[in-house]
Amino acid sequence: MEDFRRGGFTLPGEAGYEKLTLEMAEKWGADVIRDSDGTKLSPEIVEAGYRIYSTICIIREHNAFAQAHPDAQQQVFLMSDAALATEDTLTIEPLKGFFDEQFEINDTPEAMEYWQVWDRTVDMLLPRESWSYENGKVTVKGCEKWHRYTVSFLCWRVWEEINMYNHTTNHWTSEHLRQLDPRHPLAWEYLKGWLKDWCRDNPQTNVIRLTSLFYNFVWVFGSDMRRRTRFVDWASYDFTVSPAALKAFEAEYGYALTAEDFINKGRLQATHRPPTAHKKDYMDFIQRFVAGKAKELVDIIHSFGKEAYVFYDDSWVGMEPCGKYFSSIGFDGLIKCVFSGFECRLCARAQVPVHELRFHPYLFPVGLGGLPTFSEGGHPEKDAYAYWLHVRRALARESVDRIGLGGYLHLTIGQSAFNDAIEEMAVTFRRLKALHAVGAPADLHIRVAVLHTWGSLRSWTLSGHFHETDQHILIHINEALSGLPVKVSFISFEDVKNGALRDVDVLINAGRMGDAWSGGDAWRDEALVTEVTRFVYEGGSLIGAGEPSAVSGGDTRFALSHVLGVDQDDGSWACHMPWQYEVEEASPFPVCGEAVTAAPGIRLTDPGTRVLLEKDGVPALTIHDFGKGRAVYMGGFAYSPLGARMILDMLLSLTGADPAAAAVSDQPMVEAAYFPASRALVLMNNDEKSVTASVRYPGGVYTAELKPLETRIETVQ
Amino acid sequence: MEDFRRGGFTLPGEAGYEKLTLEMAEKWGADVIRDSDGTKLSPEIVEAGYRIYSTICIIREHNAFAQAHPDAQQQVFLMSDAALATEDTLTIEPLKGFFDEQFEINDTPEAMEYWQVWDRTVDMLLPRESWSYENGKVTVKGCEKWHRYTVSFLCWRVWEEINMYNHTTNHWTSEHLRQLDPRHPLAWEYLKGWLKDWCRDNPQTNVIRLTSLFYNFVWVFGSDMRRRTRFVDWASYDFTVSPAALKAFEAEYGYALTAEDFINKGRLQATHRPPTAHKKDYMDFIQRFVAGKAKELVDIIHSFGKEAYVFYDDSWVGMEPCGKYFSSIGFDGLIKCVFSGFECRLCARAQVPVHELRFHPYLFPVGLGGLPTFSEGGHPEKDAYAYWLHVRRALARESVDRIGLGGYLHLTIGQSAFNDAIEEMAVTFRRLKALHAVGAPADLHIRVAVLHTWGSLRSWTLSGHFHETDQHILIHINEALSGLPVKVSFISFEDVKNGALRDVDVLINAGRMGDAWSGGDAWRDEALVTEVTRFVYEGGSLIGAGEPSAVSGGDTRFALSHVLGVDQDDGSWACHMPWQYEVEEASPFPVCGEAVTAAPGIRLTDPGTRVLLEKDGVPALTIHDFGKGRAVYMGGFAYSPLGARMILDMLLSLTGADPAAAAVSDQPMVEAAYFPASRALVLMNNDEKSVTASVRYPGGVYTAELKPLETRIETVQ
Repeated sequence: MEDFRRGGFTLPGEAGYEKLTLEMAEKWGADVIRDSDGTKLSPEIVEAGYRIYSTICIIREHNAFAQAHPDAQQQVFLMSDAALATEDTLTIEPLKGFFDEQFEINDTPEAMEYWQVWDRTVDMLLPRESWSYENGKVTVKGCEKWHRYTVSFLCWRVWEEINMYNHTTNHWTSEHLRQLDPRHPLAWEYLKGWLKDWCRDNPQTNVIRLTSLFYNFVWVFGSDMRRRTRFVDWASYDFTVSPAALKAFEAEYGYALTAEDFINKGRLQATHRPPTAHKKDYMDFIQRFVAGKAKELVDIIHSFGKEAYVFYDDSWVGMEPCGKYFSSIGFDGLIKCVFSGFECRLCARAQVPVHELRFHPYLFPVGLGGLPTFSEGGHPEKDAYAYWLHVRRALARESVDRIGLGGYLHLTIGQSAFNDAIEEMAVTFRRLKALHAVGAPADLHIRVAVLHTWGSLRSWTLSGHFHETDQHILIHINEALSGLPVKVSFISFEDVKNGALRDVDVLINAGRMGDAWSGGDAWRDEALVTEVTRFVYEGGSLIGAGEPSAVSGGDTRFALSHVLGVDQDDGSWACHMPWQYEVEEASPFPVCGEAVTAAPGIRLTDPGTRVLLEKDGVPALTIHDFGKGRAVYMGGFAYSPLGARMILDMLLSLTGADPAAAAVSDQPMVEAAYFPASRALVLMNNDEKSVTASVRYPGGVYTAELKPLETRIETVQ
Repeated sequence: MEDFRRGGFTLPGEAGYEKLTLEMAEKWGADVIRDSDGTKLSPEIVEAGYRIYSTICIIREHNAFAQAHPDAQQQVFLMSDAALATEDTLTIEPLKGFFDEQFEINDTPEAMEYWQVWDRTVDMLLPRESWSYENGKVTVKGCEKWHRYTVSFLCWRVWEEINMYNHTTNHWTSEHLRQLDPRHPLAWEYLKGWLKDWCRDNPQTNVIRLTSLFYNFVWVFGSDMRRRTRFVDWASYDFTVSPAALKAFEAEYGYALTAEDFINKGRLQATHRPPTAHKKDYMDFIQRFVAGKAKELVDIIHSFGKEAYVFYDDSWVGMEPCGKYFSSIGFDGLIKCVFSGFECRLCARAQVPVHELRFHPYLFPVGLGGLPTFSEGGHPEKDAYAYWLHVRRALARESVDRIGLGGYLHLTIGQSAFNDAIEEMAVTFRRLKALHAVGAPADLHIRVAVLHTWGSLRSWTLSGHFHETDQHILIHINEALSGLPVKVSFISFEDVKNGALRDVDVLINAGRMGDAWSGGDAWRDEALVTEVTRFVYEGGSLIGAGEPSAVSGGDTRFALSHVLGVDQDDGSWACHMPWQYEVEEASPFPVCGEAVTAAPGIRLTDPGTRVLLEKDGVPALTIHDFGKGRAVYMGGFAYSPLGARMILDMLLSLTGADPAAAAVSDQPMVEAAYFPASRALVLMNNDEKSVTASVRYPGGVYTAELKPLETRIETVQ
């Protein structure tokens, strides 16, 4: 019988710690050793019989080329802070307030074509002849007094942002690394040649781990330490722009993009906001470019008999794993660093042969938010367990192929609790993977669809990690769903209009008015509203959270308020008294009060709406019968194991599904999965206390006392 | 020397309690005895040598006429609740959900002309031929499936609303009183004749107290006790409408109003929201009508040698005391019931010979919000003092001529604490009045202008009493201002564009985005934005509270964010990091933390903005230098004596005015006024504890120990 002690584990090797590397590889059952950014493996490790991953950041570490060809560097549109005209001439220094080690003004003729000066007071683009540029300053003539003006301009980005982050955060002092734009023909030829040379020079490497591709997530630094980060968006496309890209776009699409398509009154176009039609075109344009160039790299790697894995973080823009073009690249593996369950599901879903997770904590002295993880006072095993509880439940639902760690292996010295924890997790991972290999776990036959602007392009993730998006309700809901025994899809408003609801039992819309998750102006489309109305009226279920379907200008604020049975008063319902209500003592599903928050101004639009929870004086959780269907409204939702259980109970209540079909436990802190082909039950205790739980499954009832946080895998009848 | 024991006091007499009436008149120094709604004075009282007020509600108590001429009753536009079309024919009962004892459908041909059916899903008016009406039901043919439809319709109002309130709240069982529309020619002739008869039959009456005029504030009842009040707005004009009014309007203005001008997607047009241009026209039209008709009544009253006072409450719509037409009516007096200081200032400002306040508590068993004021367990003297503290400080700033009480006098039996309190307040009122008569109190030479949609039309009040509008920041600010030694004006956005800021030192804009107090779309006008910008830049001061100058669609949410140094993130600034800040320990004025609240999403737009208070993780109180001027931002403000003092200190700090000019005390719970012509200081202790306070005034420093709540009036050098 397999002992699950070896395989599917990638260890970060460390030069200078060869003995430790091999010891830990043994303890954790590693079959692969990788280097990390900035570290190189020594021969003792390379020749020890493990497969070897080598990390490459393709666009970085070419400073000599970048200095010789500064026009091959990457760019971005920025907008100056607004300046007030107090007389009829105004001088603006566009770059003032931005970090001058990150940006240099691009005042080449092909860039200047795209510069714009706006009168923001009246939202008017100034004619080109009314302003001039010299020596870092724009002079505007004939200003309207007391109006505010901005300059939109192109910049070179002269410091690769991850390197910049490490310097400014971890006090690195090495040379600032630059980055090349693969759109620049000379640079592209150079990069391909460099990769070929690298492959030739590194025969020991089995897998090249690209980290990641070309364009970093957007990260704009300010000059003032009080606003060091001015803008950060893990899924924006602003760093892909250049005059060459704009010209190519214009040639293909037949219309020209302008600076304002990117600047958007200074807001830029963050992923959390619905894109303009132009931005959607531009994203598709970039996705095809990135996929095409990436395929060229993969082909080179393959030509040397190596495999190409890609790390989905940092410079990944344009290669969304659920995007249309990802599978065309031909990667052999996708590596995703994970804090959360939703990230496991994101990785598992990608169309690629090998799915690998890099666990947290990273082997780095300081962890998330400055935690002293591997420093004095740190408890890396606690951090590891905290993340594991999120990851484990997702791994029980959908399999990945490999796990691993990253960072400096020597930090594990003396951390036996952590080292034992990782060992245990690796064994559990392998056992779960083996179950999945025999056959998928049972589910409740509930098809949940999360509805938002991006649809499947942004399956599971909003952008970035949980802690970067945790002010958004949807990431909490996604995290809850990632471990529930239901089918989950992510659909767009277009999908709904094209009939996607025929494959849906429960539809979820969760966000804030105007954001990409709620949908904003999409809800002005009566075809969308009526299709969701029909869907619920004819028996479907809707869960709305926050400000679902919210849009201004209608007779209600929530376009689906008639379905939800609640609406939100934004002040425009002044003097209208809401329906009074009593909170129902007998809820159709157990309410987890700690997980639900209130949204301001929520009021009932139908006396038949049942209030299950009140907070801050307003209904926080309601349920409303609509035709043959039903709708639940939540003001907000914060993920916790108990909150996830409430979502499960809510789904069961809405659909009438049989919980025994997929093994639901009687204890809210215990989750379960049933693998019918293996006749195996997986019980996962999320509690730090022992819990005795009974699980009904198609074969009967299984009861066990689980130790704190225990994973119990049992073969049953 | 005057003992201030008599005069300027109106006592509610009570038949059956003649001896008590005369005793209390003596105790409180009454010179006037009035009857109340529903009570008649007996000859013993009428002939006792007091002036007599008699109350008339002109449009009520004519049931016989109303039944004989049902088309003379008042009307209103209502909108049905929206109904969902699940097939292509839909039946809607328009009145369903409304209180059928208040409303009857008006399906006369002239009313049906104005009915409308809307497809609210696509915001489309249906052609008349697509629906029909019969027996209380509208049938819509050719519906779009899953769209929602509403019916806008005219109703008769068959129960006068104050009478309806008393029946439904106080369990009255008498006949329901109806109300006549003075626009109906027969009704108007009848009412004039009735008034003449009344004057002829009541020679003992010196003053007719009209309570009030024709049109009640809007109060729409529902059929379901869970939403008994569907809509209530103390300043809306919906109850003035009728086909006759609409025809007259069309004839005069050259365009027709429609139901939707009133219905406004079901929201109606509450006073808290900016009016449409059509509504502004309509209001002016009604104001002129009301003033004209009221003048006819006043002329009749005068022709009998009587005076005409008007009570500003209930059916006052169209006779705003600060409106353009009020003084044309020729009233001899204005009576305002007061809970608050701002109501005293509202009354005092009116262009009318006599200003009278009706104090609270009303002599009624149950007080505000169900308080057992004059019932068992009640403490009417405490209620009286609570209101008095609000009123006193306003009376120190601006004089009125009379005070009084209302209700059932017999409830004072055994309430010696209350009776003594009223006696003391009456003496203090007379002493203050005497000081004002000699010369006005000194002020700080600070001209404060409150800027909102309505300008002077809604000076001091928003609509209704404090407790009806206390969710609006501005009423708290107005209440604070009502007792401060500064000049206060109320100006509109039009006024600003016409140069009103030349007479202003400190401008205040306080409200929520889109409401009438913040201003809503008015801030799209660059002429307004630039004028306020200029004003502050050149040295003026701005106080913004809540969501000042907020409007969607710009490059900032607050149109004045460059002046305020703060803006509000409504989610559209996703991924933009705000300026970090430290809360300043040394504020330019003492901060009253309890009075200031936070608004969500507030962030600094200028690193130079100083944060004086943080709440809920955002800046709650800031100050920002802008050119030669300064701007204060407050997330919210709740009135308290200490909060009012903070506003005073804020005004002093912004303007650099000398506090000694108007006698400011060194103790925040003590307020003062200085009457230079009388060389008198008024010290008011707002504290329930004794306080020793020093007041600097132009003649020196005066120090006194004040008893709890004491008013001290001293002649000084």
